[in-house]
Amino acid sequence: MTLQRVLPFTKSLLEQAVHAGDSVIDATAGNGHDTHFLAGLTGDAGKVYAFDIQNEAIEATKQRTSAFHHVELICDSHAKISQYVTDPIAAAVFNLGYLPKGDHAIITKAASTLLALEQSLTLLKAGGLVLVVIYSGHEGGSEERDAVMDYVKQLPQTCYDVMKYEFINQQHSPPFLVAIQKKQQRQKK
Amino acid sequence: MTLQRVLPFTKSLLEQAVHAGDSVIDATAGNGHDTHFLAGLTGDAGKVYAFDIQNEAIEATKQRTSAFHHVELICDSHAKISQYVTDPIAAAVFNLGYLPKGDHAIITKAASTLLALEQSLTLLKAGGLVLVVIYSGHEGGSEERDAVMDYVKQLPQTCYDVMKYEFINQQHSPPFLVAIQKKQQRQKK
Repeated sequence: MTLQRVLPFTKSLLEQAVHAGDSVIDATAGNGHDTHFLAGLTGDAGKVYAFDIQNEAIEATKQRTSAFHHVELICDSHAKISQYVTDPIAAAVFNLGYLPKGDHAIITKAASTLLALEQSLTLLKAGGLVLVVIYSGHEGGSEERDAVMDYVKQLPQTCYDVMKYEFINQQHSPPFLVAIQKKQQRQKK
Repeated sequence: MTLQRVLPFTKSLLEQAVHAGDSVIDATAGNGHDTHFLAGLTGDAGKVYAFDIQNEAIEATKQRTSAFHHVELICDSHAKISQYVTDPIAAAVFNLGYLPKGDHAIITKAASTLLALEQSLTLLKAGGLVLVVIYSGHEGGSEERDAVMDYVKQLPQTCYDVMKYEFINQQHSPPFLVAIQKKQQRQKK
């Protein structure tokens, strides 16, 4: 056996949390890998909402998921999730940072990421997961990381379990995972 | 699905890493739960070395594992592992802190814990795991936690993967897991 790296571990959690017929969100479509994976898990009866602010990413995701007809591509900020999604979701996944192979100056930022997390948690079903893969090695990355960590640490443990999965003896700020599971329907924020 | 808590997750890693015929170490036998679990995984052809400095713990572990004949109970400090164990091990497990239901003033301490970790890593086979469940809520716990974290973070990533699994929005310093996997035979320390 090998200790699962962060990305395979994230996928294995999605496999456990997402079932056929579920609605889910890819908050950072990027090159469409997670969107494609989620489209397979949810199936025709489900729905994948995939957000990205870059046309380049939306186009790449469109290509990669062309075999599926239950993927909605949204070229807008994930800070506006609640304007596009109203059905309860089983999962939302975030890969923070920049578009791989894209313009490294265009990065996710704390303010919009926190809004997107907040809206995802509101839409989340009991038992559902919000998964955030945090990259902090790039310029601006550590500020976003710190803001996200401050936010998730204060989520009430009566409503959420927040777990961190991280390799801690590596150089070059490798990505780590924060997984948030809703324990019960929130009565109020 | 539910995000696995720290103790079940630790067990699931042991299940993946330990096979029939393996030698393993329970560095903190305590009430014998892990020793019993490891005895089942290793089977008659394997060997479990279980350490505890308290007679009370050794007696409890003896009772719990009475059905097995491949468990060696050692009433001595785990800082002396290398005096008792010479065969390569597939895993070692540590539950730091005090003996549950025992004397809370008798706790594992940084100096001996670090020696035990060092000796366990030396005995560890490539692919094997050293798992450390860290409790820091008791008096003296935070010093040991900090010493262990300093130690594991500096383990060379060419030889080891060090992963931390932790719930981060909980009160009362819940236990967290550090899992160390040996990537290859160490040529030298």
